[in-house]
Amino acid sequence: MQPDLSKLDFSKLDGLIPAVIQDHATGRVLMVGFMNDEAFQKTVETGCATFFSRTRNKLWMKGETSGHRLLVKEISTDCDLDTVLLKVEAIGPGVCHEGYATCFFRRLENGAWVTSEERAYDPKAVY
Amino acid sequence: MQPDLSKLDFSKLDGLIPAVIQDHATGRVLMVGFMNDEAFQKTVETGCATFFSRTRNKLWMKGETSGHRLLVKEISTDCDLDTVLLKVEAIGPGVCHEGYATCFFRRLENGAWVTSEERAYDPKAVY
Repeated sequence: MQPDLSKLDFSKLDGLIPAVIQDHATGRVLMVGFMNDEAFQKTVETGCATFFSRTRNKLWMKGETSGHRLLVKEISTDCDLDTVLLKVEAIGPGVCHEGYATCFFRRLENGAWVTSEERAYDPKAVY
Repeated sequence: MQPDLSKLDFSKLDGLIPAVIQDHATGRVLMVGFMNDEAFQKTVETGCATFFSRTRNKLWMKGETSGHRLLVKEISTDCDLDTVLLKVEAIGPGVCHEGYATCFFRRLENGAWVTSEERAYDPKAVY
């Protein structure tokens, strides 16, 4: 069945799709968030990545507290239209609320998650 | 609250977490799948990315039909331990079952999804 190419498929995760955030310059994967249709539309309209917070149950523009916005350079979707990939310019020293450049700062080593890089900023000074 | 660093958090999506697959050499994001705990353990044990298929409701080693396996080079997780990032060597000409090198072959241009690259292989010859 050919999907409807005009729109994303939000049906598989109760109205949400994963959004992978990748640094447009370095190629690093910075974070994964979730978007509902409204968050996706806001992202396109404003050019700033906006997510749906599953814990707070509301829209959330990344950087609204920290100033660490994600400026969208390119948006892609996959074969099933149920995931988006955003290439962004990340404003500020780091994307992660724990102070790291990327949220993916833990690597699996011999069966354990090991912090694999230094903090880029002090999260207490920002959040 | 400090998460339990010994294990991933599969509680947020009914036992699943998103798994972002990135080419270890080029940095391209190739696909996003979902893993349950068993799929994640299989991935670690075998070194080949294994997902949980939401449509078929069973484990699925990527490449079991096509031969296009994903050999795991590195596994990271994020601050919330609810997503994994796998850097892989992708065997074969393309990851996508539609014949493209990456599943993210559609780009948003002026509000429409536009195919932004050529097919890498003929999917009819493989699937």
